[in-house]
Amino acid sequence: MKNKKIRYALISVSDKSNLESLLYVLDKYKINIISSGGTFKKIKKLGYKCLEVSKFTKFKEMLDGRVKTLHPKVHAGILSDRSKKRHQNEMKKQDFKNIDFIIVNFYPFEKTILQSKKQKKIIENIDIGGPTMVRAAAKNFKDVTIITHSKDYGQLLKELKKNNGKTSLEFRENMASKAFGLTAYYDSIISNWFNKKLKIKFPDTKTIYGKKIEELRYGENPHQQGSIYGTANENGLKKIKGKPLSYNNYNDIFSGLEILSSLKKTGTVIIKHANPCGVSTNNSPIKSFENSLNCDPISAFGGIVACNFKIKKNIAKKMSSVFFEVILAKGIDKDALKIFSARKNLILIDISRFKNETNDRIKYFGNSFLSQDRDYKVLDAKKIKFVTKLKPTKKELKNAEFAFNISKFVKSNSIVITNNFSTIGIGAGQPSRIDSCKIATQKAKKFQQKKLKSSVAASDAFFPFPDGIRTLIKAGVKVIIQPGGSIRDNEAIKLANKEKVKMIFTGYRHFNH
Amino acid sequence: MKNKKIRYALISVSDKSNLESLLYVLDKYKINIISSGGTFKKIKKLGYKCLEVSKFTKFKEMLDGRVKTLHPKVHAGILSDRSKKRHQNEMKKQDFKNIDFIIVNFYPFEKTILQSKKQKKIIENIDIGGPTMVRAAAKNFKDVTIITHSKDYGQLLKELKKNNGKTSLEFRENMASKAFGLTAYYDSIISNWFNKKLKIKFPDTKTIYGKKIEELRYGENPHQQGSIYGTANENGLKKIKGKPLSYNNYNDIFSGLEILSSLKKTGTVIIKHANPCGVSTNNSPIKSFENSLNCDPISAFGGIVACNFKIKKNIAKKMSSVFFEVILAKGIDKDALKIFSARKNLILIDISRFKNETNDRIKYFGNSFLSQDRDYKVLDAKKIKFVTKLKPTKKELKNAEFAFNISKFVKSNSIVITNNFSTIGIGAGQPSRIDSCKIATQKAKKFQQKKLKSSVAASDAFFPFPDGIRTLIKAGVKVIIQPGGSIRDNEAIKLANKEKVKMIFTGYRHFNH
Repeated sequence: MKNKKIRYALISVSDKSNLESLLYVLDKYKINIISSGGTFKKIKKLGYKCLEVSKFTKFKEMLDGRVKTLHPKVHAGILSDRSKKRHQNEMKKQDFKNIDFIIVNFYPFEKTILQSKKQKKIIENIDIGGPTMVRAAAKNFKDVTIITHSKDYGQLLKELKKNNGKTSLEFRENMASKAFGLTAYYDSIISNWFNKKLKIKFPDTKTIYGKKIEELRYGENPHQQGSIYGTANENGLKKIKGKPLSYNNYNDIFSGLEILSSLKKTGTVIIKHANPCGVSTNNSPIKSFENSLNCDPISAFGGIVACNFKIKKNIAKKMSSVFFEVILAKGIDKDALKIFSARKNLILIDISRFKNETNDRIKYFGNSFLSQDRDYKVLDAKKIKFVTKLKPTKKELKNAEFAFNISKFVKSNSIVITNNFSTIGIGAGQPSRIDSCKIATQKAKKFQQKKLKSSVAASDAFFPFPDGIRTLIKAGVKVIIQPGGSIRDNEAIKLANKEKVKMIFTGYRHFNH
Repeated sequence: MKNKKIRYALISVSDKSNLESLLYVLDKYKINIISSGGTFKKIKKLGYKCLEVSKFTKFKEMLDGRVKTLHPKVHAGILSDRSKKRHQNEMKKQDFKNIDFIIVNFYPFEKTILQSKKQKKIIENIDIGGPTMVRAAAKNFKDVTIITHSKDYGQLLKELKKNNGKTSLEFRENMASKAFGLTAYYDSIISNWFNKKLKIKFPDTKTIYGKKIEELRYGENPHQQGSIYGTANENGLKKIKGKPLSYNNYNDIFSGLEILSSLKKTGTVIIKHANPCGVSTNNSPIKSFENSLNCDPISAFGGIVACNFKIKKNIAKKMSSVFFEVILAKGIDKDALKIFSARKNLILIDISRFKNETNDRIKYFGNSFLSQDRDYKVLDAKKIKFVTKLKPTKKELKNAEFAFNISKFVKSNSIVITNNFSTIGIGAGQPSRIDSCKIATQKAKKFQQKKLKSSVAASDAFFPFPDGIRTLIKAGVKVIIQPGGSIRDNEAIKLANKEKVKMIFTGYRHFNH
């Protein structure tokens, strides 16, 4: 009878929560416990028998614990194939024992890099023994149960009860799959830490990693499933109220935060379908909101608002007169909260602690992904060229700078028309630039015709033909900022000069797809 | 003098290329070699001295080699801190030797899963000993050199020459960073294999992994750097001719292939700025190309063409009369190649072996990513509702199906107008549906006014107001397919009935951002 054999579980955990319930059940099923260090002490303190690893292996741990479980007796105990006679004979000959349960957490590398900059301490927290046992046990899931998280103890206990002190193959395989997920995640963090430190942008192998934050109600559409992943490094988004976030909410939030973090002044961004439909900066927060809304009040319906200021009573009143799904702000005061509380489904998120720091931008397809730098580039006033006879005023130049910055975040081809640091017409996502010009001018005509008169237009890339420029000028645009570089630049400049419009060449483009 | 100490290198490689040059130099600097199995035999055969691991550890390998290097003598040899007296005393006491060089490849897990479906074989190819040594050596890069790929031998040899048989800290840290990149990649593949097998879509921890295929000239814009990553599983794209692919080329190719793989018949897709600007299916390949081009011949300029047929002479002639950056096809015959050869920069890619099989769609932002199913859903004729008095004919229904399928790939809000299985107007990426309707109809009016008369329009999501429907009908659309579900559906149906237009509700939407 297999059950008569002495059975072993090796436990080595940094997270000691719920340990007692685990020990109670292992003891009930007469499973012997092997451990060391802090876990050993804790187990003894809880009143359970426990064999020290060094007693089990008859090898004293050395090098400040760097070498402890890296021993054949431990690893043969995990890796031996219980169904192979030859394996079991070898085990007997060496007087080695099979270890059927491995319950292990790793040294907290992720936590350490968040809390410390000391390289020595960080490197000491790269666990070698732990991942080796976990990988070995997961490989041999046919015979061994691997548990890597205290939240799985409950399931383990159920399994043991259901199977009279054993676990099912299905359970073991499931846990093995988790275990390799964890080792991949753990080494991804380490690899990323090294790459960051050594300023390696494009390493030979790259892994992008995350822990599941939550499964979403569905994906981009109800017939797709979706989840959101992130790292332990909290994302700085604190939900204050509202229903659960959807896939599309997150997607819009991402777009909103990306634009918001590029604004140098008090400002508001409204997003719909991942594209901005209104952006404005203004010393007055409420004006920045109103101006961003005025850009396209129809599209704003059901969109998300992101603002880089604290929402107070008067702004809350204004905002709650429009239907938004999500509002992101750097804090929301009590009076404002009271006003919003009437809107049951509205989601409020405090972004005070949000930082948009990562440089990496990834586009994923099939078995491939494109990795690139974030488009950090901002206009350098010294490098731009004034190509028309008339030069922009200082204020016009500032407005042009604002417009060109926003064009960076609008899907290409993008045309952004602004007036006084507010977008008044956005043309997005067209394969032909002239169409984006038409959309932007039509939008402005529809909602704020008057403001077109002294407006500034930005184009994310050069105009292949002067037709787009003609459309803009005809609508009332007085300053155009664009990369330049078309073989027909001369025609464009001629046209601008003729129409007394000022044009600026930036010398670089802002494609974004 | 440190140099007088006996020094050791442990070598265990499945890739035995260039081993001789490595051995020659190690020998020159009097570095002793430890090895086992196939590597040991190869080294002996090449005429170099070599100590078997089992002789070094005085422990015979067991369990069919599962336990071999998982021994304190190996791991203390790697992990001991050479600058700590206590560590070195412990080493002396045990008669352990430091191992300064670890040159290790892993069991070929990735190759195995591509070649075999046998679980036992696959699991046996999960390497435990190798990754443990690599991780230990990389952790202790302060003292140990870790080499994980034969392509790095050259650099190692240079280092040894430069530093009289030693390596620099900088080199060792660089190699350590590579090593953790590799272990993260290796375990990601294993984890993914388990998840796939167990049908776990959203595991607790998720890693997305790739090997660098190439660094690109630049990213989406010249001021951004970019690279493309993929797995060993070849992506099925065979470049036949042309300049190197750019970031934007890849991005457009991804969009093109996604649409192409959804077409059930002979068809062509033209992509510009990651959006389709023409899609057509037709029994005649050349007609499918012509019709896809006619949708927006201006935007097609500089775009990419993807077709699911072999390109022959007559098609090549037609195609080369337009400026495209990339042409993807299921083969290109000799005569066609000759024609294309005149276009020096044109990129030709054979996609005969391309398979669009992955189900995962990832959107990445900062430290987070959204993971969702691919939008696989296709129209089920049994579940659709004919909501108007007039019902579509069979052919109209087929056309509507085609249009709704294409709307899935156009950035939301999308409106796709088609005639006889060819798009004639595409409205993409607008925050307001009415604007997409306007763009689509304007496009069709501009290039193929006549075809609007009996056209079919698809909307990726419902119409919040009937204004969009009015715009379509006014332009000549006779059949409209849309999800339905707006509170104003009745108004829309009433309008369609009045105008004798046929409308179909699919019951589900196709958002895509």
